[in-house]
Amino acid sequence: MSKMNAFYAQSGGVTAVINASACGVIETCRKHKDKIGKVYAGRNGIIGALTEDLIDTNKETKSTIAALRYTPSGAFGSCRYKLKSLEQNKREYERLIEVFKAHNIGYFFYNGGGDSADTCLKVSQIGKTLGYPITAVHIPKTVDNDLPITDNCPGFGSVAKYIATSTMEASYDVASMCATSTKVFVLEVMGRHAGWIAAAGAMASTKDNEIPIVVLFPEVKFRQAKFLKAVKEKVKKFGYCSVVVSEGVHWPDGRFLAETGLKDAFGHSQLGGAAPVIANMIQDKLGLKYHWAVADYLQRAARHIASKSDVEQAYATGKAGVEYALAGYNSVMPAIKRVSNSPYKWKITKAPLSKVANVEKMMPASFISKDGFGITQRCRNYLEPLIRGEDYPPYNKNGLPKYAQLKKVAVPKKCKPFKVK
Amino acid sequence: MSKMNAFYAQSGGVTAVINASACGVIETCRKHKDKIGKVYAGRNGIIGALTEDLIDTNKETKSTIAALRYTPSGAFGSCRYKLKSLEQNKREYERLIEVFKAHNIGYFFYNGGGDSADTCLKVSQIGKTLGYPITAVHIPKTVDNDLPITDNCPGFGSVAKYIATSTMEASYDVASMCATSTKVFVLEVMGRHAGWIAAAGAMASTKDNEIPIVVLFPEVKFRQAKFLKAVKEKVKKFGYCSVVVSEGVHWPDGRFLAETGLKDAFGHSQLGGAAPVIANMIQDKLGLKYHWAVADYLQRAARHIASKSDVEQAYATGKAGVEYALAGYNSVMPAIKRVSNSPYKWKITKAPLSKVANVEKMMPASFISKDGFGITQRCRNYLEPLIRGEDYPPYNKNGLPKYAQLKKVAVPKKCKPFKVK
Repeated sequence: MSKMNAFYAQSGGVTAVINASACGVIETCRKHKDKIGKVYAGRNGIIGALTEDLIDTNKETKSTIAALRYTPSGAFGSCRYKLKSLEQNKREYERLIEVFKAHNIGYFFYNGGGDSADTCLKVSQIGKTLGYPITAVHIPKTVDNDLPITDNCPGFGSVAKYIATSTMEASYDVASMCATSTKVFVLEVMGRHAGWIAAAGAMASTKDNEIPIVVLFPEVKFRQAKFLKAVKEKVKKFGYCSVVVSEGVHWPDGRFLAETGLKDAFGHSQLGGAAPVIANMIQDKLGLKYHWAVADYLQRAARHIASKSDVEQAYATGKAGVEYALAGYNSVMPAIKRVSNSPYKWKITKAPLSKVANVEKMMPASFISKDGFGITQRCRNYLEPLIRGEDYPPYNKNGLPKYAQLKKVAVPKKCKPFKVK
Repeated sequence: MSKMNAFYAQSGGVTAVINASACGVIETCRKHKDKIGKVYAGRNGIIGALTEDLIDTNKETKSTIAALRYTPSGAFGSCRYKLKSLEQNKREYERLIEVFKAHNIGYFFYNGGGDSADTCLKVSQIGKTLGYPITAVHIPKTVDNDLPITDNCPGFGSVAKYIATSTMEASYDVASMCATSTKVFVLEVMGRHAGWIAAAGAMASTKDNEIPIVVLFPEVKFRQAKFLKAVKEKVKKFGYCSVVVSEGVHWPDGRFLAETGLKDAFGHSQLGGAAPVIANMIQDKLGLKYHWAVADYLQRAARHIASKSDVEQAYATGKAGVEYALAGYNSVMPAIKRVSNSPYKWKITKAPLSKVANVEKMMPASFISKDGFGITQRCRNYLEPLIRGEDYPPYNKNGLPKYAQLKKVAVPKKCKPFKVK
């Protein structure tokens, strides 16, 4: 049997370290040239497979591939596209097989979160369902940290380090200003369903260096009076307060704070953030001067302050994914298993994809403090190793990070055009 | 004559490197123990002098003072408080003299921007006007980069590095997502009057690594149709676009974009940012999916990605300030003079405070590209050395920066209480 080629693609919202996983996949494939031929990357995730828009990663130099380790975002392009079930969209599965056959693809590595795990699971089954044998492995990635089984998700540690550091720095700032100016700083962070990133904000305060921070989790219904009381008390005690609010925070009736009745000049609903809503509330009800920030993409793109643990784990899951595939495991995901907390030790284990896809892991109740505005020691113990260590990118002389620049040479097409609906 | 003590205070919005100036002042004073006694820091700027709320910096260890070099924000507390003229508020000047006399203060170092230069200038004149001889030196600081005479302002280089890097990283992110999701990313940056910080966003794109970025400067009146056309063209060519919008951008009639008719549920004007206004415009008029961020305090507090040039200049201006004072210069400010661009060389020179106070330096027209949405090569040549080099803080084992923690021991009071009006 001739050597099979591999397909690799990135899916969903990107992270500061998803390319470190790509680096792990490609470098490991290159080490096994006896078993794996070329690595073709899908341009824009599974869309690249469907449209036969493949990038020949073999055209990239060794140093470019190595540079992926410290380059944020999805170097090959990502997508928000979930394959429907075989029954609903047989056409797409048949097309995948057409493209895979044409390019002799026997390995499928899909790098993404929960939705992408579902896509990967479906692809892993086309051997059985449609008679095209392929080994499909899902490489975990999500800043939301909401995949099950794995102790944590590559991508999360770096956004957590960014948010913890930024909350600390901005809190120092408001502490400097509070005597005569701003008293409350509000930072909105990602996390529509799970409060993991918001929890990282609370890490800025420690026993040795207490900082007044009120965290608003999507897991906790927003109670305005209780919240304002908490802020008021912190301001009274410390002179200032920081608020870290998850974008997914909602009122008891389920409406997001971010959609609380803001209208623009034309009467359209203003798709604003939760931060300005909280900030205005603080001014209206407490009469306190505020500043607010919305970190948005900055947080998940901030490779300049990536967590070393996170980079290592992102690489390791990519590497393990290839090793699992070579060992013949189909429909699995390399998961991170925490072996010990102190010293922090972890290893990679196999998780069956069927147990990963479409399952969201929320913050456990034991991680949220009793008042609902902070984190417990258990949560600290969990988070701390994930944000530990620095892993700086190199910089150019112009003062900017020297991120990878890929040639992205397209693989010549062999199939007919295909339109993604 | 007995040795005189020194007073040091921080004023206005803080920066990532104002404490590096404090470090320069205090370490240099400590080196001249024969001439300068103690360094008393005003708690919360000039307010600390008026209320006799002084911090004895001699109680801080050598290593704590050294740590100020890499600690963001104002370690001694800042203030937004401008002394009125002597005619309007003689009471405060007399009070300053009372406190200075009581604590044998003969040197006054004030670390701030344009308004603070005015306060420092007024203090420098109380020798003549009220017969209390004091040597007053202004140490420049402002992220806005709008002080005259000095080539650039300590604090600006670091925020510029943060914005350039963040714009680059977030642009990589949206480039990854644009095939099926977000096509425009909007980042709001500081700068109510001057577009220096917004200009830094344009630095993310270079000849070797072109990134589609549209910059909105406060110096350029906002023309909606022209702006939307520019974004549309970039999206057509690149598939995506980043917009860096200064908080001070305004309509041709002078209204800020940020106050364009947003109302909350109660009909109050929503004090939102410019970014959501731009983002909604892009959705309404171009039908493109967007993300937006507001960097706010994060940008000026981000010591974790400070510019090395900036840290060095912040320290150097603090050091030079003390040396000027010791040489008998009153009412001056150490200014940065660019000696050459390539290689970048600079030195510190004396600027008369009377020419600094209350003068704002805007972006020169020659720095803004013809279409009004970018920067010229001249601007690049100016900005590049300012964001060059990294100067990382040390980190704790918990993954967070190890910033200075001061004891801030209060100097025993000798005067009667005084109420700041």
